[in-house]
Amino acid sequence: MTIPSFEGWTCPRPLQNYPNIVMGHGSGGRMMADLIQHLFEPLFGNDLLKQMGDSTVLDINAEGGLLAFTTDSYVVSPLIFPGGDIGELAVNGTVNDLAMRGAHPLYLCAGFILEEGLPMETLGQISSSLAAACKAAGVLIVAGDTKVVNKGHGDGLYINTSGIGVIPNGVNIAPNLAQVGDAVIVSGTMGDHGIAIMSVREGLKFESQIKSDTVPLNGLVKTMLGVTNDIHCLRDATRGGLSAVLNELATASKVGIEFEEVKVPVRPEVRAACEMLGLDPLYIANEGKLVAFVPEPLVDTVLDAMRAHAYGREAARIGKVLEEHPGLVIAHTEIGGSRVVDMPSGELLPRIC
Amino acid sequence: MTIPSFEGWTCPRPLQNYPNIVMGHGSGGRMMADLIQHLFEPLFGNDLLKQMGDSTVLDINAEGGLLAFTTDSYVVSPLIFPGGDIGELAVNGTVNDLAMRGAHPLYLCAGFILEEGLPMETLGQISSSLAAACKAAGVLIVAGDTKVVNKGHGDGLYINTSGIGVIPNGVNIAPNLAQVGDAVIVSGTMGDHGIAIMSVREGLKFESQIKSDTVPLNGLVKTMLGVTNDIHCLRDATRGGLSAVLNELATASKVGIEFEEVKVPVRPEVRAACEMLGLDPLYIANEGKLVAFVPEPLVDTVLDAMRAHAYGREAARIGKVLEEHPGLVIAHTEIGGSRVVDMPSGELLPRIC
Repeated sequence: MTIPSFEGWTCPRPLQNYPNIVMGHGSGGRMMADLIQHLFEPLFGNDLLKQMGDSTVLDINAEGGLLAFTTDSYVVSPLIFPGGDIGELAVNGTVNDLAMRGAHPLYLCAGFILEEGLPMETLGQISSSLAAACKAAGVLIVAGDTKVVNKGHGDGLYINTSGIGVIPNGVNIAPNLAQVGDAVIVSGTMGDHGIAIMSVREGLKFESQIKSDTVPLNGLVKTMLGVTNDIHCLRDATRGGLSAVLNELATASKVGIEFEEVKVPVRPEVRAACEMLGLDPLYIANEGKLVAFVPEPLVDTVLDAMRAHAYGREAARIGKVLEEHPGLVIAHTEIGGSRVVDMPSGELLPRIC
Repeated sequence: MTIPSFEGWTCPRPLQNYPNIVMGHGSGGRMMADLIQHLFEPLFGNDLLKQMGDSTVLDINAEGGLLAFTTDSYVVSPLIFPGGDIGELAVNGTVNDLAMRGAHPLYLCAGFILEEGLPMETLGQISSSLAAACKAAGVLIVAGDTKVVNKGHGDGLYINTSGIGVIPNGVNIAPNLAQVGDAVIVSGTMGDHGIAIMSVREGLKFESQIKSDTVPLNGLVKTMLGVTNDIHCLRDATRGGLSAVLNELATASKVGIEFEEVKVPVRPEVRAACEMLGLDPLYIANEGKLVAFVPEPLVDTVLDAMRAHAYGREAARIGKVLEEHPGLVIAHTEIGGSRVVDMPSGELLPRIC
């Protein structure tokens, strides 16, 4: 990943004369054209983006004719955090939303809302990271938009990404397709992203630095779909963590869910941080973990495939889908009790993504 | 357009207990679910949105397989202005970007960045307006995202919309397809939106109130394509106004452009405001006007069709495309002189859209 140098720019209003974003960079005129030409094009450039039309024309070859479409705005604070930054998050988050329908993510568009005064270097660093994340996930930025708001009306930058993916024939994954008897699988440890953001924001120091788990999950999903199309539900456990996902799926599919708390993978340092802060890792946000509902007979096949993938090594079966108590999620605790795991009323930490 | 009433809401954490947006409304938990269930769903609801997946699955039936895809963030200040508001603008702007490639706009997704403290009533009014604009343009909101940022880190609300449209077989419209000899057409009066925003923001009073021209242009484009597929370029004259559009097209197509200033339609009250403020209407933003490049033999046919449409009544031929001075735009003035109409270095007024 190379952060572009501002040194050689020799346009009429060279960006190097502007170490910080000014209102004119969002104005649709020459200064904005400079920003695009010298920063965004070298980083994001591809033949589709080059069309420079009001919108971008895409030749979508969807065998089954089904596309997935999604949008997310990213307002995480701070912009750069242990294990990632808002640029990487803006790609992975949207790629993951597409992958959770079984789609192959293809194209993203990106909207930047820049706050006047944002250091050009920060924008360069985050844009480079966004470009690198696109490469890693195998997606292209095909359209973009830049706006600038006055100082005190933003927080450095907000990024919106929307994405399009193609759904392979025979894949049908949706929140309301859970079946009684399905096994509940998580792809890895819970709570890393939320605790990473919390630690840096609240100035907490732990013995080892806790990093965000932000990664693109489309490769892992492709691997899973390589062994079977018969996956019923997929969901990445972002805001609200595992508890929000399980509650949403239980409600959407009108089924009950139970799981064993001790089987949910949690890093020791995340667990320690949660104990210290009085938090429950089941409610903490992740940015690179998914929950899958698969038919019982396929569990081992799917788990083997997941564990062979870099982003699924710690995949674990944690529970199952029941006919009883539809809409309700029950956790069995280590000491033999059980408790209702409720929908969180809100993420513990605002602006987590 | 009905603004939803907050009175009958009886959910566990009823929204009527929150006259203003609080951080929890963006947290991915129950408060956000309330906001979606009681405000966004009743207004935007459709079968596709009901999927409630991480992304929305669309069955796109593109005969030729070509889609248009675009994104825009809207940060206009003030949120509500003469002739429209940010909600209506967020639909029309993105619909127009799709229409400028000849696409039929079908689906939008919407991302809201709400500032803590935003009155729920304002959000209701703007969301209603957004829903009404979707209906008017014939598009559906199929995916959404809500984030809340702390007070002092936003400006009420910012909206991002991304859109997908289908390009009819045989339509090929792009900024680099202008041909020498093409006629340059504008669909109506220039400068209305910019002057409307400026007047309300700067507290200027004119004899008659100047209103934004924000409208969806997909109907007008459909009408034009109804008489011929042979349209070379279309562009809506937003930030930077007519001058930015002509410069962009001259550069992209490597052609020269000349036009007669006196033929550019400008409302008398807009002209008066411009004269008073020392502004040039050619540089002022529009939100419901397009520029079209069409082959000379088709001009009258296209103009007749445009003038028969509500949003093209004042359509006018203003100039033509030349082989000479590629990349340069020349205006012939009323008194017989001529001048270079340069690319604006930036919109005169920030946060115009």
